[in-house]
Amino acid sequence: MIRAVTWQDSPLAGVRLLDQTMLPAVESYLTADTVDLLVDAIQRLVVRGAPALGAVGALGVAVALLQAERESWGTDELSAQIHRLRGARPTAVNLAWGVDQVLGKLSDGVSAVLAAAQRIMADDEAANRRLSVLGADWLLSQTANRPVRVLTHCNTGSLATTGWGTALGIVRELRARGVLGVVYVDETRPLLQGARLTAWELSRDGIEYLVQADAAAASTISRGLVDAALVGADRIAANGDTANKIGTLGIALACADAGVPMVVAAPWSTVDLETPNGDAIRVEQRSQDEVLHLGERKVAPPLARAFNPAFDVTPARLIDAVVTERGIVEPKRGTDQDLLHALAAVPSSERPKA
Amino acid sequence: MIRAVTWQDSPLAGVRLLDQTMLPAVESYLTADTVDLLVDAIQRLVVRGAPALGAVGALGVAVALLQAERESWGTDELSAQIHRLRGARPTAVNLAWGVDQVLGKLSDGVSAVLAAAQRIMADDEAANRRLSVLGADWLLSQTANRPVRVLTHCNTGSLATTGWGTALGIVRELRARGVLGVVYVDETRPLLQGARLTAWELSRDGIEYLVQADAAAASTISRGLVDAALVGADRIAANGDTANKIGTLGIALACADAGVPMVVAAPWSTVDLETPNGDAIRVEQRSQDEVLHLGERKVAPPLARAFNPAFDVTPARLIDAVVTERGIVEPKRGTDQDLLHALAAVPSSERPKA
Repeated sequence: MIRAVTWQDSPLAGVRLLDQTMLPAVESYLTADTVDLLVDAIQRLVVRGAPALGAVGALGVAVALLQAERESWGTDELSAQIHRLRGARPTAVNLAWGVDQVLGKLSDGVSAVLAAAQRIMADDEAANRRLSVLGADWLLSQTANRPVRVLTHCNTGSLATTGWGTALGIVRELRARGVLGVVYVDETRPLLQGARLTAWELSRDGIEYLVQADAAAASTISRGLVDAALVGADRIAANGDTANKIGTLGIALACADAGVPMVVAAPWSTVDLETPNGDAIRVEQRSQDEVLHLGERKVAPPLARAFNPAFDVTPARLIDAVVTERGIVEPKRGTDQDLLHALAAVPSSERPKA
Repeated sequence: MIRAVTWQDSPLAGVRLLDQTMLPAVESYLTADTVDLLVDAIQRLVVRGAPALGAVGALGVAVALLQAERESWGTDELSAQIHRLRGARPTAVNLAWGVDQVLGKLSDGVSAVLAAAQRIMADDEAANRRLSVLGADWLLSQTANRPVRVLTHCNTGSLATTGWGTALGIVRELRARGVLGVVYVDETRPLLQGARLTAWELSRDGIEYLVQADAAAASTISRGLVDAALVGADRIAANGDTANKIGTLGIALACADAGVPMVVAAPWSTVDLETPNGDAIRVEQRSQDEVLHLGERKVAPPLARAFNPAFDVTPARLIDAVVTERGIVEPKRGTDQDLLHALAAVPSSERPKA
């Protein structure tokens, strides 16, 4: 399996990242051994995907600690650098969560932090596999059509996680059960995580897929070409409102109109019970250049400006299922808030220690 | 005003087209003096936009007639070539309509065909201006917010028509009345008619706009950032169902959910009473390469395939207003079919002589 995020001991101790900005043309890796390099890699989307960012957050504390030793930082400087790492991207809750998970080990040294980070990564992969099984079970109970044709958006596979995947994990689980039909892959402008990354992962797995413009999603759903939409999440509020890659809301609206199940798949670490609802989620605005350029080439007129929110918020009322490794919440049925809190109470080794 | 389509007498007699594939970087023109060149220009989208294609269809008959004289075609060959021109793009009704409008003049010679074509073009511009006034009146009666902020998709301006514009004509009319706010311009993948063409037109007019990814449209509408969505149409069925650029359906779903008016603007020549509803509209599938490439560069993996419908069909139940030069139909109010037929009965100099 592809590993987008791993720890490297030598020759340089740091976080080894598969450079996702270069895929699918080039498969290259870089090692971030300073907070600067890591924050830059996060902001340039060398690494992205909420669960992967959780791993990066945890491993990043080790990077900061090693740099502090090399450069003789005081406690204040170390705290400031970890704080900067923690806020490198504002929408995904997992980055901050990953940092917070290992902060308690800070005084125990690098090895203890690394051990905790590795545990988080192993837990994340286990969570992915568990939620994929639960998601596939749920989906097969909801739709009679075989094979199951699905639509997905952005990238939620091995590249977005510590391995396996969330929404794409469910796709893989359906494949393993022999019931997967064609996958419609939204290209996911502006950065094309669908056309570049999801297509790359599906190609490697030999899964049949069709890339489409994001604007085609509503009609693909409306025309009955898919049996479900499967997406990931960057933050799930306590009422079930979900922030995810820009375009998710449009998919949810089309699903609701067509009576097609809209499924959000994410590890429990993406659920943020401190955030009451979608209105409280801060949506990251990214550079105008991402929209005004295609690759290197400027496509819009010289003085054009762009509006580039990286995420949108899908209200719980449009979501049929939130699939986590702890269980499934069905927000559309109206019992969302209670269910998320009920799941929070489930004792689990994967449970984030808040 | 920009003229995307004109007749040129010399040095080469033919249809002079502003090459829209090169905008906004380069403003270049080509003259199509054979049916081959014209069909190629239509299919490559050198010229596009339903009303502009109406003009091209009418002028194209003159091109065919001149070529028939030069190359001594028989009647059968001439008919076959005109038929080929007529079907160069299947979804827009206007291309065939433009051809049909001048067919009756065929036996009167090139001058008579050209005169009829020029009349069609003048009528189209007059229709654009009239529907823009009606559309602005209607919109201002529906929304109290001033200035009026709108979202638009694809290109429906001077480049898509014989001058002025349809949805963008309403934008221009709002501007002329001093009540226009910011315009959100969907980039309109895969061919970026929004980011390239609409942005270029708005830049020239000094209108404030923001380009956004198509996937951002639903959240822009849902977040209350616009007071209306204004789009064009490639074919309007007798019940009000409307084929338009892929992505229009998603905008309509978001508008319906948010209570924001969804306005379709088109000259009456786009209304096709012979087509009972959207199910009967054939949707053009375009090349996979449009989706799999950004400009010259392949973005998806080597063996990737794409799904590339150029249009989608928005059901009448999601459309607040169909604005034509003859008047306004409000399909959402449920009286769509009757109203379209009532409008068809309005005596009008612009009325297509079917």
